Amino acid sequence: MLPEAIEAMTEQLRHVGNPSSLHAAGRRMRRVVEEARETIADALGARPSEVVFTSGGTEADNLAIKGLYWARRPRRRVLLSAIEHHAALDPAHWLGESQGAEVELLKVDEHGLVHPDTLRAAVERDPDDVAMISVMWANNEVGTVQPVHVLAAVAHDHGIPFHTDAVQAVGQLPVSFAGSGADALTLTGHKVGGPMGVGALLLARGLNPVSVQHGGGQERDVRSGTLDAPAIAGLAAAVRAAVEQQEALRRRLTALRDELIERVRQAVPDVVLNGHPTERLPGNAHFSFPGCEGDALLMLLDAKGVECSTGSACSAGVAQPSHVLLSMGADAAAARGSLRFSLGHTSTRDDVDRLIEVLPAAVERARRAGLS
Amino acid sequence: MLPEAIEAMTEQLRHVGNPSSLHAAGRRMRRVVEEARETIADALGARPSEVVFTSGGTEADNLAIKGLYWARRPRRRVLLSAIEHHAALDPAHWLGESQGAEVELLKVDEHGLVHPDTLRAAVERDPDDVAMISVMWANNEVGTVQPVHVLAAVAHDHGIPFHTDAVQAVGQLPVSFAGSGADALTLTGHKVGGPMGVGALLLARGLNPVSVQHGGGQERDVRSGTLDAPAIAGLAAAVRAAVEQQEALRRRLTALRDELIERVRQAVPDVVLNGHPTERLPGNAHFSFPGCEGDALLMLLDAKGVECSTGSACSAGVAQPSHVLLSMGADAAAARGSLRFSLGHTSTRDDVDRLIEVLPAAVERARRAGLS
Repeated sequence: MLPEAIEAMTEQLRHVGNPSSLHAAGRRMRRVVEEARETIADALGARPSEVVFTSGGTEADNLAIKGLYWARRPRRRVLLSAIEHHAALDPAHWLGESQGAEVELLKVDEHGLVHPDTLRAAVERDPDDVAMISVMWANNEVGTVQPVHVLAAVAHDHGIPFHTDAVQAVGQLPVSFAGSGADALTLTGHKVGGPMGVGALLLARGLNPVSVQHGGGQERDVRSGTLDAPAIAGLAAAVRAAVEQQEALRRRLTALRDELIERVRQAVPDVVLNGHPTERLPGNAHFSFPGCEGDALLMLLDAKGVECSTGSACSAGVAQPSHVLLSMGADAAAARGSLRFSLGHTSTRDDVDRLIEVLPAAVERARRAGLS
Repeated sequence: MLPEAIEAMTEQLRHVGNPSSLHAAGRRMRRVVEEARETIADALGARPSEVVFTSGGTEADNLAIKGLYWARRPRRRVLLSAIEHHAALDPAHWLGESQGAEVELLKVDEHGLVHPDTLRAAVERDPDDVAMISVMWANNEVGTVQPVHVLAAVAHDHGIPFHTDAVQAVGQLPVSFAGSGADALTLTGHKVGGPMGVGALLLARGLNPVSVQHGGGQERDVRSGTLDAPAIAGLAAAVRAAVEQQEALRRRLTALRDELIERVRQAVPDVVLNGHPTERLPGNAHFSFPGCEGDALLMLLDAKGVECSTGSACSAGVAQPSHVLLSMGADAAAARGSLRFSLGHTSTRDDVDRLIEVLPAAVERARRAGLS
C-alpha cells in the first residue's frame, strides 16, 4: 500500500461512526466518504454521483454484468471478450446457466485484442436483444490494452450499455471515465496501492442496474451495506496518488519492462513474449517458456526471491491452462509454460538484475523436470 | 475499534500479497487468513472450514438467503421474521419480485418474539416447498433475543436450512454456531469492535448456497473476490477479544442498561420501553416517547453530546416508521417517537448521567415542537 493510503485509512480506523447514522459521529464519517467520492471522481473524469463504492473489483464486475442484464430484461444477450477476468466471465456464465442469458464470448486476435469489427458483427446479429457488453480495459495476464473508446462507441451506436473492468488500467494508464465513453467502469483498491476489500463501480447517471447486494439502500439504492469509511478514505488517497504519479510511473516502468523483456530474450533465446508488442500495460511482461511447467518455474524462481505469477492469482494453484492464452491461440502446453512478471511502483533495476541472474538456471532445471 | 483489532489490521496493511497467489508473499497472507479462520471458528463454536469471509453482514445475509433459495429450487417458500434487518428482508423481497419466491413474514408478539409455534404452523402449511428460513438472533432496534435454538429445531424437523443474522449477538451474548443448531450464521466486523467492510457467514458443511458474487472461486467457491487479509486479521482479533470479554461486558452492560431504563422512566414517566423485558441485548434500551418526533429528539440530544439512533442506521434519515415497531403492534405515531440508546464497551455511568441530565428538557422541547 502507498504510505498516503495507509495514513488516510489508519486515521479513520481510530474513529467510530456509521456514515448512514444521523448523530455527529455518523455525519463526520459521511463527510469522509463524500470527500473520497469527490477525490475519486476528480481523478478519473467522473462526477461524484457516478461513484458507487463496493467491496472490490469482483463485486463491481458482478454488479455491472448481472445488474445491467436484469435491468434490461427481456433482452437476453450478454457480450464479453473471451479474455475477461473470472470476476466478469463467471457472473456472465451464471446468468447463462440460471437466468436465461445468452452469453457470447468475443474473439481476440493473437495479441489479445478485441477488434471493433468483431464486436460490431456480434452486436449486429441481433442488436435489440443485447442487454450489455463488457470488455476489460487492460488484461490482467498478458497486459494487452483494448481500444475501449472505440468499442464503447460501437455499443452506443445501438444504445447498449458498455462496461469495462479497468482494475489493471487505473494508475498505469491515463483513465478518464467520461473520455472513455464507458457507461460503467470497475476499479479496485489493492491494484492502485490502496487497501484490499474496497473498490468502486463508476456508473453513468441514468443507468440503474438491479442490485446484487440488497439491504439498507446505500449508494443510490444500487449497492447496500454499511459504507467502509476507513477503506474508502484509503482508496481515495491511493487513487489520487496513483493518478498523479501515473505518467512518471508509466515512463519509468515502460523503460524497465522493455529492458526486462530484452534481457529475458537474451537469457532464454526461445522465450515467447505474449500480449501486444506495443499496446500493453507498462508494468507487464508475460512470457511462454517452451518446455517448462509454469508452476515449477515459479517455485524455482520464488526460492531465489523472485516473485511472479502463473495466470491470475484468483485461479492460481489450479492446474488449468489460462483461458486468456488459449483464446489468443496458444496451445495448452505453451499456455501452461507461461509466467507473468509484474512491475510496480517499488520495482527497480535491481529486481530485473536479480531475475536475469537466476532465470537461466531455473529454466534449465524446469525443463529437465519436464522431461523426466 | 478495539485496540487489538486495529493493531492486527494495521500490521498486515504494511505487507503486500494476494492470499491466493503462489509466491511467498501470497502464501504468507494465506497463513494470516487461515489463522484468522481458526480463531473465529474457535471463538464461535464452528469448524474452520465453516467460516466463509464476506465484505460484511449485508453480503452474508444476501448470500445465505438468495444462495440457499437458489440452491434449493424448485422450492419456492422463504420464511423470515417480520422484524428482520433490511439486509435480510430486501434480498428476500427481491427473490419474491423477480425470482419466483414466495416470501412469508412470520408474526412477532408485542415484545418482538417469534414464537416457535408460529414458525411451525407456517412451515407445516407446505413444508416440502420451504427453501429456507431466516430469523435474526437479536433485533438491532429493540434488542429482543429470539429462541434461535428452538426455532432451528423446528426447521430441522422438516430438513429445512435455518439461517440467523447474529450481527447484534456476537460479543453481547454467548454465541455457539454448533450449539445454536443454525445452518448459517451472519456476523460482521464493525459490530464486534473490528473493522468495517468485513464479515463472515458461518456455513455448515454440506450446505452449498449458490454464489451471489461469482469470480475466482475463493472461499469454497461460494464467495469469490480477493481475500482482504488485513481486515480479516482485524476481524479475528476483534471476535476473539469480544468473545473473551463477553461475559464480563454482559454483566456490566446489563446493570448499566437497567439503571438507564429505570432513570429514564423516572425522568419521563410516560415513556414506553420497547422490546422484551428480559430477553434483550444487554446494551440495548429502546423507548417510545409519546408526543415526540424521534428525529427531533435525536437532534436535540445530539446537540447536547448524546448520540442515539432512530430505527436502524441504514434507513435513518428516511421519515418512515420502523417496520420492527409496527410489526410489534405499535401505531405509526409511537413508532416515529422512538429512540434507541446503545451501550458498548466504552459506555460508562457518566454517559447515563449525561443523558438523564439533558433528556427531560429535550423531551419537553420536542413535544412543544410536535404541537406547533
